This record gives sequence, C-alpha cells and structure tokens, in this order.
Amino acid sequence: MGKITKVSPLAPLSFPDLPVIDGVAFATAAAGVKYQGRTDVMLAELAPGTTIAGVFTRSKTRAAPVLDCQSKIGGASNAGAAILVNSGNANAFTGRNGVEAVEAITSAVAQTCGVPQSRVFTSSTGVIGEPLPHDRVTAAIGDLKSKLNPNGIAAAAKAIMTTDTFPKGASAKVEIDGKTVSIAGIAKGSGMIAPDMATMLVYIFTDAKVEQTALQAMVSDHTDKTFNCITVDSDTSTSDSLILAATGASGIDATESKSFSDALQGVMLDLAHQVVRDGEGATKFVEIDVTGAATDADAKIHAMAIANSPLIKTAIAGEDPNWGRVVMAIGKSGAAADRDRLSIRFGDIQVAKDGWRDPGYSEESAAAHMKGENIKIGVDLGLGEGHATVWTCDLTHGYIEINADYRS
Amino acid sequence: MGKITKVSPLAPLSFPDLPVIDGVAFATAAAGVKYQGRTDVMLAELAPGTTIAGVFTRSKTRAAPVLDCQSKIGGASNAGAAILVNSGNANAFTGRNGVEAVEAITSAVAQTCGVPQSRVFTSSTGVIGEPLPHDRVTAAIGDLKSKLNPNGIAAAAKAIMTTDTFPKGASAKVEIDGKTVSIAGIAKGSGMIAPDMATMLVYIFTDAKVEQTALQAMVSDHTDKTFNCITVDSDTSTSDSLILAATGASGIDATESKSFSDALQGVMLDLAHQVVRDGEGATKFVEIDVTGAATDADAKIHAMAIANSPLIKTAIAGEDPNWGRVVMAIGKSGAAADRDRLSIRFGDIQVAKDGWRDPGYSEESAAAHMKGENIKIGVDLGLGEGHATVWTCDLTHGYIEINADYRS
Repeated sequence: MGKITKVSPLAPLSFPDLPVIDGVAFATAAAGVKYQGRTDVMLAELAPGTTIAGVFTRSKTRAAPVLDCQSKIGGASNAGAAILVNSGNANAFTGRNGVEAVEAITSAVAQTCGVPQSRVFTSSTGVIGEPLPHDRVTAAIGDLKSKLNPNGIAAAAKAIMTTDTFPKGASAKVEIDGKTVSIAGIAKGSGMIAPDMATMLVYIFTDAKVEQTALQAMVSDHTDKTFNCITVDSDTSTSDSLILAATGASGIDATESKSFSDALQGVMLDLAHQVVRDGEGATKFVEIDVTGAATDADAKIHAMAIANSPLIKTAIAGEDPNWGRVVMAIGKSGAAADRDRLSIRFGDIQVAKDGWRDPGYSEESAAAHMKGENIKIGVDLGLGEGHATVWTCDLTHGYIEINADYRS
Repeated sequence: MGKITKVSPLAPLSFPDLPVIDGVAFATAAAGVKYQGRTDVMLAELAPGTTIAGVFTRSKTRAAPVLDCQSKIGGASNAGAAILVNSGNANAFTGRNGVEAVEAITSAVAQTCGVPQSRVFTSSTGVIGEPLPHDRVTAAIGDLKSKLNPNGIAAAAKAIMTTDTFPKGASAKVEIDGKTVSIAGIAKGSGMIAPDMATMLVYIFTDAKVEQTALQAMVSDHTDKTFNCITVDSDTSTSDSLILAATGASGIDATESKSFSDALQGVMLDLAHQVVRDGEGATKFVEIDVTGAATDADAKIHAMAIANSPLIKTAIAGEDPNWGRVVMAIGKSGAAADRDRLSIRFGDIQVAKDGWRDPGYSEESAAAHMKGENIKIGVDLGLGEGHATVWTCDLTHGYIEINADYRS
C-alpha cells in the first residue's frame, strides 16, 4: 500500500456480520512480505469432501499462483483442502522464481495442514515483477495453523487488502427443503479492475453440498453478470482469482437448487459492487444500463465503452451531466449503433431522444441527479432486445494521487 | 474552452514559420459561436483545380458536417473550393438541426465565394449535443471573404482551437525535378484523442499538383502511421476530420513522387505529435515502440493497450518506472503474447527480459529516465516480426481539472 488513504466515501457503514460456515476455519498473520504493522497472510482450511470451483483472469501475463490454481481446479475432492493468500507482492512476472515460490508455499501448507499439495490453492496480490520473499510466508504457516478459527473470516478479509480502503464481505442464507445453508464471501480489489473471466481476489464459502461440475457451472455463469460487469480503470490484473468452496458440512445438497444459485449470484454481485465502491479515488457509484442493443454482447460493449471513458468518468467527478460524451462513447465502441435512434437518460431524466437533445430536457434536473452519490446512466439503442448493466466509479484526483506513487 | 489553461509544458517554443501556399487564402473572425473575445471561425478559399482528399472518424455517432464532407470527397475538382470551420460547438448529435446548419453554412459560403456548394467543406468542433447557432457563422462570411489573405494560416490555426493550449502547424518543402513544392498544415486537438481512421481537425495544403485518387491514397496510408497512432485518453471524437488540399498552383505534378509522399507523412506525424504534446494535462511525451509481435496489427494492439492504460499513464506522471504495469497491459490487450519471452526497456535500460526482471536492472537508472520530458517504452514480444510505434502523454491532475468542468 503506497499510502494509507482515508476510507472511500462509498464504503458501507461497517463490515457485515458474516455467518460461520461449517467446515472452514481461518487464520491471519503479519508475515512482513512488504507491509509492516498489519496482517498480510491468511489461511483458510477446508474440511474433507469440500468441492472447489474457481474462475481466473484470462490475462496472457497471468501470475504463477494463478496458473497453479487453474491446474488444480476440478481435481478429486475427498481430501481436505487449504487456501493461502498473501498481500504486498503479486508473484507475477517473476519467472522461475515465481514457480519456486508457489511450490514452496503449497508444499509447506500441505505438510502443515495434512492435505494433498494438489488441494492447496495460493494467491498473491500486490506489486508485479518483484520476487516474492516466500520464506517469510512459509515461516508463518505453523503459527497460522495453530490459530485457525471458524470465526476468522472478517480478519481474513483485512489481511488480503492492498490499496483497498475497507474490507469486503457479503453473505446469504438459503432454504432448501426446509433446511438452511449459508454462503459467506470476501473480496479485495480497488485498482487494476476490469476483470476478464474472473476478478481480483474473491473467496466464497458455503456449507452446502454441491457437485464440483455444478459448482463450477454456477460460478462461471454468475461471473459474467457480476465481476465481469464492473470496471474501475479498464486495466486487467495479472492475478484475478475467484475461488468458491462448498464444504458440504450442512449435509444439504444444493447441486440442483435454483435458490442456492440465485443467492450465490447475489453474494457475488454484492462483493463486485463493494469493489467498485472502493475504486481508487471513487466518489460516485455509477450504474450503466444499456437496452435496445442488437445483442446482449453489443449492449455490454457499449456499456463498457461508457464505463471506461475517462471523459465520462471525469464529467461524473465534476457533477456535470455531459451526455454528449455518452454519445461519443457509443460512437467509438465498435458495436452496432444508429445515431438517430439513440436515447439517453441520467437517472429518470430523459436527456436525449431519437438522435438529439430531448425537447423537454432540463439541464438543472440532470445536474441535480449528478450531485447524488449514486449515478444512473441509461442508454437505449432502439435496435433490438440486447441488454447489459455494468457498474463503475468516477475518475478523480484521488486516482492520480494513489497511482502516481503506488510503488514508492 | 471551459477555462483558459496555461500553455502545455510540452509545447514547441513558438508557432513555426509556415510557407505561403499558392492557391490558398485564409481569413478568421470572432463570430461568438460560444467563446467571447477570440476568433472562432476560419475560412480557407482554394483556387480552381484544387484536388481534395480527406479522412474522417469512423464513429457511429459522427457529426452532420463530417457526413457532409465525406459525401463530397472525390467529387469533380475543376471549380474552386472552400473550407469553413467553427470552434465552440461540434454540431454533433444535433439531429435535423445539425443537417440544417450544415446546409445553411455551405450554401452561404458557396454563394459568397462563387464556388459550387458541393465543393464547400465545413467542420465544427466543441461541445456535443447543443444546436449550432449557425446564423452567427453565416453572418460572418461576408467579413471573412473580404479579409482573405495568403498569409493567414497562423491565425487560422488559432481560430480552430478548443481546449488546445497552443496552435499547431507544420510544413515541408520538396524538390521534384529541380523545382520546389511546399506543404503546410494546421491541426487542433487536445482531449477526446484516440483517432479511428482520421483525427481531430487537420487541414493540410500544398501547391503541388496531385491527382485526387493518388492524393486520397497518400493521406489514407499515412493516417494509419501518424494520427491513428496517437492517443491522449482513448476517447474517439465524433468530429475527427483531416482534409488535404492540393492547389496545383506550382504547376509541378507530384502524383507519382515518393519524396512528396514522404514529406507529407512527415508533416502529418509532426502535427500528430503536437496534438499529443498538447494532450490535456500532459507533462510527458511518451513513445511506445513494440517489436517482435506476431503481426503488425498485434504490435499496435499491444502498443495501444500500454498507451491507454490509466495505471501506466499515472505511473509516468509520478515518474515511477513501474514496468509491472506494462506486463499487465500486454496481458490484457488480447493480442498474442508469451509471458516468458517478453522483454521491456525504459529508454535504453533493459528492465525485464525473458519473462522476469533483468538481472542487471537498476531501479535508479530507470527512475532517472522517468524524470525526463520524453519517455520511451520499448517492448519486444519475442514472437515474430510485427512492429508498431505509438505516442501518448501522461495522465495527471491537469486532465481531471480540465474535464471535470469543461462544459461549465
């Protein structure tokens, strides 16, 4: 963390009360990987029989721990498992060193926790390109093992933070055949946020019993509507990872449960929104809703062009209802558009319609909407049924401050 | 112009001495389209026989004057011609109003200058979505006609500015068969710069005689290596236009001249670089050179991913040799890359090689390079012969200041 910044103005009032998930225990420690005076490693130990699904960045320069996790997803699930995460160093673009660091960490965790190395998942987040001092991580594993606690998820959410200004958690409870299963998840992420297939670091746990292939299908589907629909700065991390672990400790099978799947999507969306609310320098939470596109894919291209436009993001920071820049973003996105069928709303205010400014448009009403903390931009292409919603934040002086000297 | 900003630190010391081009005369006036107390319209009158070529934005929301110009390029060239440009209002996304404004302006210019309306080209630059008060423009045309002057190109460069902090001009002289022809061009552009097919507003004049199809081929080819290789903020204007007029007044035929074509490319590159040097808030001029890509197209995708990454642009603003962010940008670009063959240079300093930090890398030397005004980032993919060079600037507080309240 280059500097301790004050908490995002868009942060929730407090970290939520997350339910204890049977079959998972957490521990954190201050290993001094890079940061001093704070926790920077977390261990989650998972009961035998836990099924694990995951989605990961598609970056072509993805980090060694990401490649290692990807190779392990889908393996046998009768043994126990463990997740070890460090912050402060991404172990990305570290060549042979990086692979050795992953080997050292996963082997030490396997030995200490008594689980197969093929069931140890590790993630690293922080600076890219510096060798990870993995001995500092492995030195902490004995201590972590001795402190494992089913109530440790809030502390775990803190230990994985980098430029985050608040820890992120979300949960749900689902009734299945009259019994209740729980889902609890944590995430980190604030900058370099434009996930492609997965995102940041996200860990979600449930005591439901779900077959691995079904679990993987759920998480892949929901990622496309949640984490893959947010952007802070259009930059895609080398380390984005989401791991979902179903311990089955409740004995309740949710493999075919639509309500479980819906609840899971809700937890994922909540965490994704919290990442945007902690976007570097953010002062506004922005929802962009595109309808009437030729296809859903086109709608998402338009929505992301709007969400990633620095001119739109700075206009929002300046509370300026500069809808001309929305017209610009649609024009450049590359997806199908017809200028003369285009309509644009800011909040509930129709600002443009059928290719020009709405005759009833009032700049004052639009400006009033821009003063709020939650901004909604609606676009209708007038071409078809394609629809997408994405979320982003504004671009402020805070982003420049944080990123002009993150490493120093 | 939302506010008068101080001149870019990357500006040339002064506006260059541009040669007079036989067959062109210029005039400017303060029509009060939006700005007060400065010139905001310019007229260029072109001699009979002038051939005209142009390239224009591919934005799907392009402005009415752009569509009108596109429909006229390639028409008969025996009559005279004229170019009328206003700043302060882009006449973009203005529906029927926009078409009427173009009709009113081109018809008034045609009448006053005695040229066919099909040979009158108009451009508008400024705010998107506000109706253009075209009566203010047409009211100035008589005055403009009476003030036409072959020496007026420097004043014309000023009249077309919006958020530009300096006027932009460039020229060349070319020997053809022992005789000399001249090229002189002007441009405006500072924000919303990520041209797609063409750029901003650019007007280039030459007294050479060049057949229209050859002229169009030259300008299209060179655009791909000049204006289409710059980006300030990844946002593509609705109004980008480049018009090249060859008056033929020298009597020298340059249709087949390689040296003329090369000189033209030089003028276009010079103007493109000046646009980057006037990038909103810019303090560093950045050249990104990608080699060893699978194809030239892949090299350009990588180079543009680097040039448009807000994390890289802010690191440059902070003088931080944060090459890990270059790794990130290559990973996300979508073009072919192999992490373990990747090499990166900052200036002449090899920072990364074969997928990890160069063993001889010195952070101090790299940091020293970053303190300069001209930053060079070199990337070799190690895959093939593909090559591209693009230019951009850093992302600073100045960009946020200019764009958070441009309209107000």
